[in-house]
Amino acid sequence: MAELNTTLEKTLDTLLAEKKYSSVKDILSTMAGEDVAAILQELPGKSGPLIFRLLPKKIAADAFIEMESDYQENLIRGFSDSELTAILDELYVNEAVDLVEEMPANVVERILSHVDAATRKEINQILQYPENSAGSIMTTEYVSLRLGTTVGQAISSIRRNGSDRKSFYTCYVTKNRKLLGRLSVKDLLLAKDDEMLIDELMKTNVISVNTHADQEEVAQMFSKYNFMALPVVDKEERMVGIISFDDAIDVLEDETTEDIEIMAGMTPSDTTYLHSSPFELFKHRIGWLMLLMISATFTGMIINNFENALSTLVVLTAFIPMLMDTGGNSGSQSSVTVIRSISLGELEFSDLAKVIWKEIRTAVLCGAVLAVVCFAKMMLIDRLLLGNTDVTLLVAGVVCVTMALTVLVAKVIGCTLPLVAKKLGFDPAVMASPFITTIVDAISLLVYFGIAKAVLF
Amino acid sequence: MAELNTTLEKTLDTLLAEKKYSSVKDILSTMAGEDVAAILQELPGKSGPLIFRLLPKKIAADAFIEMESDYQENLIRGFSDSELTAILDELYVNEAVDLVEEMPANVVERILSHVDAATRKEINQILQYPENSAGSIMTTEYVSLRLGTTVGQAISSIRRNGSDRKSFYTCYVTKNRKLLGRLSVKDLLLAKDDEMLIDELMKTNVISVNTHADQEEVAQMFSKYNFMALPVVDKEERMVGIISFDDAIDVLEDETTEDIEIMAGMTPSDTTYLHSSPFELFKHRIGWLMLLMISATFTGMIINNFENALSTLVVLTAFIPMLMDTGGNSGSQSSVTVIRSISLGELEFSDLAKVIWKEIRTAVLCGAVLAVVCFAKMMLIDRLLLGNTDVTLLVAGVVCVTMALTVLVAKVIGCTLPLVAKKLGFDPAVMASPFITTIVDAISLLVYFGIAKAVLF
Repeated sequence: MAELNTTLEKTLDTLLAEKKYSSVKDILSTMAGEDVAAILQELPGKSGPLIFRLLPKKIAADAFIEMESDYQENLIRGFSDSELTAILDELYVNEAVDLVEEMPANVVERILSHVDAATRKEINQILQYPENSAGSIMTTEYVSLRLGTTVGQAISSIRRNGSDRKSFYTCYVTKNRKLLGRLSVKDLLLAKDDEMLIDELMKTNVISVNTHADQEEVAQMFSKYNFMALPVVDKEERMVGIISFDDAIDVLEDETTEDIEIMAGMTPSDTTYLHSSPFELFKHRIGWLMLLMISATFTGMIINNFENALSTLVVLTAFIPMLMDTGGNSGSQSSVTVIRSISLGELEFSDLAKVIWKEIRTAVLCGAVLAVVCFAKMMLIDRLLLGNTDVTLLVAGVVCVTMALTVLVAKVIGCTLPLVAKKLGFDPAVMASPFITTIVDAISLLVYFGIAKAVLF
Repeated sequence: MAELNTTLEKTLDTLLAEKKYSSVKDILSTMAGEDVAAILQELPGKSGPLIFRLLPKKIAADAFIEMESDYQENLIRGFSDSELTAILDELYVNEAVDLVEEMPANVVERILSHVDAATRKEINQILQYPENSAGSIMTTEYVSLRLGTTVGQAISSIRRNGSDRKSFYTCYVTKNRKLLGRLSVKDLLLAKDDEMLIDELMKTNVISVNTHADQEEVAQMFSKYNFMALPVVDKEERMVGIISFDDAIDVLEDETTEDIEIMAGMTPSDTTYLHSSPFELFKHRIGWLMLLMISATFTGMIINNFENALSTLVVLTAFIPMLMDTGGNSGSQSSVTVIRSISLGELEFSDLAKVIWKEIRTAVLCGAVLAVVCFAKMMLIDRLLLGNTDVTLLVAGVVCVTMALTVLVAKVIGCTLPLVAKKLGFDPAVMASPFITTIVDAISLLVYFGIAKAVLF
């Protein structure tokens, strides 16, 4: 309830304590469904479901669709048949699909038996599209107009039949279900002449997506074009549904969260953090931790090979963390930048050469500056200030050359792997910090000991 | 042009080669402004600006606003006064503001002298709001209706005056500029009776934002509520503008990119990757690399303090990378999860205790499993398979206990710092992988050597 006015919150608390449910209902009836959902779900005991059943059905449905699925299930189990039908009537088909996907089998059965046959068919249709496809997030309630309709007729038709259309403001002109054109309610209302045919008014070069398009690409189209809705067509170019901007915003957020989770070495989760149990968090996190821990065997082996030399010049050990961290950070800067650019549709595999060349020049700049500062730091702080006489000019030289080379290698690997992953059909986000760090660690140690062996022993 | 049909692309290439600019214009005139912008900007030499000036002014303006700022500047410098006025007339005020913010002073002067006085005043007003505030991204073209208007009158008024309103589909009812209510064109069109007063139809509990609200919070409200537009009010609750969903989507994307860049240890950039020079990338990356490299002095000091012991038991060195990486990865999993939840408005500082308790339990699960597997790995791979007899039961024990403790500490620090940063008014995204890794590195070394000293020497 963070965003609600605290005075209102206190008022509601008082009214609830006094069991003045009818006044609570009146207050909630003026609010947005999202806020009603938040309030009801925080109420203790049975008062949430009790107040829910008092709400006007439009607001009840708006709130219902914003609730967590366990709360929804609980509500449905308490509904009478007519209450269930009333709520389902208010949902768009894509919302009903989301509900069906979350509920256990016996609840799904009850839901499907309380929608009309046409809706049931549409729900089943949408359920068959692959997860994360355009088809799976579309809805079927769009306004469709016929060629030869006049502006005046179109406006009357929308006023008569538009109430349950999700794409109310964008109308599609179809013939034998083929998508011929698009026009907006704004175009209709601003048309100078009610007798004008929509054939002349409509835009014929309509951007649409295929049912099997990836939902992330679809969402990116909304951020590129300022669409309110995007039509979805099947393989035969027949219009089957629309995706609306508000659903696209949700997809954008979910896909970004998924990218960020993968980039931080986790398997993505559908549950919000506060609703995830420690065991669920554990399951999403242990895989990568385990893999990365075991792959660190290589760094251990590299150090073991160099054991004799290290025991005679232990000072080299002190700079291992700095070299590994700087390499890891440099690599993840590049990989994360490239991964995000791929997500935003700004980079493709064909840009690889351009990207590598850009990263090489950036790495030379970063590496040179870091090496110079590192050299000064080792001489001034480590040797003079801390009095570590093992830090000779030669040792500092080895460390700083290693640093510059590591930054270069890290940046080239960091920018290359995500683009290669994309090309091979993997998720580029996997090629982020943890993965890059592990590879760069091993390489930086090899470079370090290689140079040290050549120069110091 | 990645998303354009390749046949179309070839057609355009051919027409351009044959200098059939008028046909090119006809083709582009059927397309979305975003695609026209992409095509024109890729054309060599003067043909882009040449074709641009042939386009119908609505499409020209739609394309113009999607172009890179150096291309826009180039176009403006070539415009006649009347061409400039024609383009500026088609822009919304917020688009004109964006343009003014990007252009050099002499171009700005020319732009401001070609808009009418009222628009100039609005532009200057919006320019005064702090960067990243709701005021700075709003626009002033909203539909406002007066109390006492009937549905029929409202519809006629919109049909007469709505053409240049960005919030065409959402109307605001104001009195002395105070915001009293909101209703949609859908509400108006679906109203049963044209004589009904909008006073009865409008929603009075209107969610609005203050001009000084952070744009990220505003964008989050769009992803929470399914708004098409959100009204912006000043300190006196007077309505001053609206923010529309398409601008909010852009803000959401920009803010997420910024978060991701900061999380990867970079200062955020406004320029897209392919448009950034290596020197610009260097500037955005060197700061954190430098800071983190210098702070690695501490890990070096810790290792130096333990130098004598390490020289007698070099095998301990081999496990430093594994311990540091596992700690870093564990910590960044927690910090990134918490940072994203904060961004999505799901977590606040008041949840700190709940979060820490959840992370402790997750860390115990992760730490225990990792420690057991690590112990098995050290005994089977390092000792038996690789024949490293220095890896004794005691050494493996020290490494595995350190690992479990490091995971615990890393997860607690990782989840705490972002929430504390948020509370103190810093950007939580700073508390991501690179920062956490540096802290956890030092702590894991201290734990490692502390336990080793107690057990092994």
